[in-house]
Amino acid sequence: MSAELASLGVRARAAVKTISTSSAAARDQALLVAADLLAARAGTLLDANQADRRAAAAVGMAPAALDRLTLDEARIEAMAEGLRRVAALADPVGEVVDGWVRPNGLRVQRVRVPLGVVGVIYENRPNVTSDAAGLCLKSGNVAFLRGSSSALRSNQAVVAVLREALDKAGLPADAVLLVEDTSHATALEFMRLRGVIDCLVPRGGRELIELLLEHATVPYVLDGDGNCHVYVDAAADLDMALDIVVNAKTQRPGVCNAAESLLIHRAVAAEFLPRAAEALAGVELRGDAATLALVPGATPATEADYATEFLGLCLSVAVVDDLDAAIAHIERYGSGHTEAIVTQDLAAAQRFVREVDAAAVVVNASTRFADGGELGLGAEVGISTQKLHARGPMGLRELTCAKWVVWGEGQTRT
Amino acid sequence: MSAELASLGVRARAAVKTISTSSAAARDQALLVAADLLAARAGTLLDANQADRRAAAAVGMAPAALDRLTLDEARIEAMAEGLRRVAALADPVGEVVDGWVRPNGLRVQRVRVPLGVVGVIYENRPNVTSDAAGLCLKSGNVAFLRGSSSALRSNQAVVAVLREALDKAGLPADAVLLVEDTSHATALEFMRLRGVIDCLVPRGGRELIELLLEHATVPYVLDGDGNCHVYVDAAADLDMALDIVVNAKTQRPGVCNAAESLLIHRAVAAEFLPRAAEALAGVELRGDAATLALVPGATPATEADYATEFLGLCLSVAVVDDLDAAIAHIERYGSGHTEAIVTQDLAAAQRFVREVDAAAVVVNASTRFADGGELGLGAEVGISTQKLHARGPMGLRELTCAKWVVWGEGQTRT
Repeated sequence: MSAELASLGVRARAAVKTISTSSAAARDQALLVAADLLAARAGTLLDANQADRRAAAAVGMAPAALDRLTLDEARIEAMAEGLRRVAALADPVGEVVDGWVRPNGLRVQRVRVPLGVVGVIYENRPNVTSDAAGLCLKSGNVAFLRGSSSALRSNQAVVAVLREALDKAGLPADAVLLVEDTSHATALEFMRLRGVIDCLVPRGGRELIELLLEHATVPYVLDGDGNCHVYVDAAADLDMALDIVVNAKTQRPGVCNAAESLLIHRAVAAEFLPRAAEALAGVELRGDAATLALVPGATPATEADYATEFLGLCLSVAVVDDLDAAIAHIERYGSGHTEAIVTQDLAAAQRFVREVDAAAVVVNASTRFADGGELGLGAEVGISTQKLHARGPMGLRELTCAKWVVWGEGQTRT
Repeated sequence: MSAELASLGVRARAAVKTISTSSAAARDQALLVAADLLAARAGTLLDANQADRRAAAAVGMAPAALDRLTLDEARIEAMAEGLRRVAALADPVGEVVDGWVRPNGLRVQRVRVPLGVVGVIYENRPNVTSDAAGLCLKSGNVAFLRGSSSALRSNQAVVAVLREALDKAGLPADAVLLVEDTSHATALEFMRLRGVIDCLVPRGGRELIELLLEHATVPYVLDGDGNCHVYVDAAADLDMALDIVVNAKTQRPGVCNAAESLLIHRAVAAEFLPRAAEALAGVELRGDAATLALVPGATPATEADYATEFLGLCLSVAVVDDLDAAIAHIERYGSGHTEAIVTQDLAAAQRFVREVDAAAVVVNASTRFADGGELGLGAEVGISTQKLHARGPMGLRELTCAKWVVWGEGQTRT
């Protein structure tokens, strides 16, 4: 194994006890100090970032990737604000999840505690460094970070600020650690640090996820695709449906909770689809035969289109015979992220909620609400499309686990 | 991939929607019918089991393994009783975990739903077939079972009963499926059925766990070793400590929540250890120099002894200078399962509870209480030593996940 990784692993474990049992006040203080330091060190950060960008441009990085790599004053201020916002949230650590007394007098509690070491493996956006570290620290975890080689200098600068802030708050600087060997081999080793990493959070595309599935031996939480549907029922308020479809598709098309597919009940298709096509001007519609008959501008949808997360101004459309057909379509093509129904029919809403297997089911609202901030979690670690540990928007609680605490008075088992 | 496995996977997914949205009454009915049928079909089960045992004996299966493979009338009745007990538990499905209203009026709930398809991979005890299937069905999941080749005929007979009971209760028989190709290659394929298996529960030894860590791509919950400690503090009630140590070590030495190591504060070692040695007559004690000086019958402990889950009448012993040393010893050698302190000192108890990183920490009671039944979960799926999804004793709830349900009135995101 890489000597650096082995040594960082030892340091990460050594920092766990102090950070996991530290006071919320000290951790919040570290976050606030870090926020101020980010602003104070903006010049250093921008220099480091410029060096990263120059090197990236020299090897021909694409403009979109270069943009994600870029830091400027506004983005640094946003990072600082993010840390301040996280500091202001309620502490998830120590929450008594539930508890009861057993017939033999044992008092049983389940208490929320930090996971320990949270590994984060991510791509070239340097703001993820402070975002992820902030969430880990807030929840009492050590942040063990592995960013991309293209952002190494920027990440080093951000991590230096975070470590300085920890030190100033009387906490171990090693509660934030950055892997500086960014080779592919080390990434694989990172995913296999069993006994060091308690939870690995990947922040990246499909390639990273595939790598993880194939090679990781540490526990992880996956943030997968969002092929989200809006189903407009026969009993929908069509004005409401129009607002919801337009919002779900166009308010921010590049994110995982944007709608990618519109299903419309046959009974209202003729009335709704032409209006929707007009309201969705600028969005490419790919539809089935019934859609094409109603929307002259639409192009034929393929099987692949229905399974695609476009992440852009494109929407697949299908006319369905009834609620059953809508649910079956979602079961076939959905990715288990977020599914919405628009209807005034209570029975239809209830069946949709019960029968659609997704992290979030939404009645009469935009799919775009499937977001930690919007649902009231305060901060978002990601949106899990797996079912274990965390499903759907993940907040600070999802960076904790429950420890059983049993208080007795000498009880033994018979 | 094995054609059988592929076909079973399709059938498992097809059964998910019906079983996951079925009424608790129907699922309980299936469990009760299955319990009666197990008794009624005892002759068939015993014949199948005899054929398994004859084949196993012919290839030289060890007596202990042969015993685990064996069914008799009493064990069949115990399986039936197990199903009846599970049927009587509260339904975990549909429980509203929490919920709130957002400032924009969105009503948000997290509702407990079945995981979908639960894979269980296990060794040669045929009673696991009905135990595991019972817990899966109770929680609205499809049970996708892969037992060992040595128990195949027994497992087939048990599964036939369960499937008949499902059918009689008006539920899909395919809610219980058994993989009949028990080759090693198929076991590996089973661990990689992503998109089919929502959660894999291994019930077996270290070899199975290692195989899973290396090859599984489906989500899983691990049930690892229990190297559990009892720390007797300077402020312990020594009579209570004696009861607890004896109980934790000897009440059932072969299980994961039995104590494997005794830590004793130096201040009370001279008084406690000779009494403990006497009360633990028949238990081999392996101790450090201080222990050997106080307990003539003890043998020297090696590093490996302190790290060993003996699962038998052997106990490692160490005299420690203080609470810090006890916590450090547990941090070094513990497996994160269950750790107990005996003390009347509130501050010591609170520090132990806070600083010891284990699934269960116990104050003044036996480690043997770290058990789903004893802690009040009704049934136990296993004891997780991982931190994600489930930590410590797992009940029916741990076979579910939370689905976000969002009720709106036309809200869109700005």
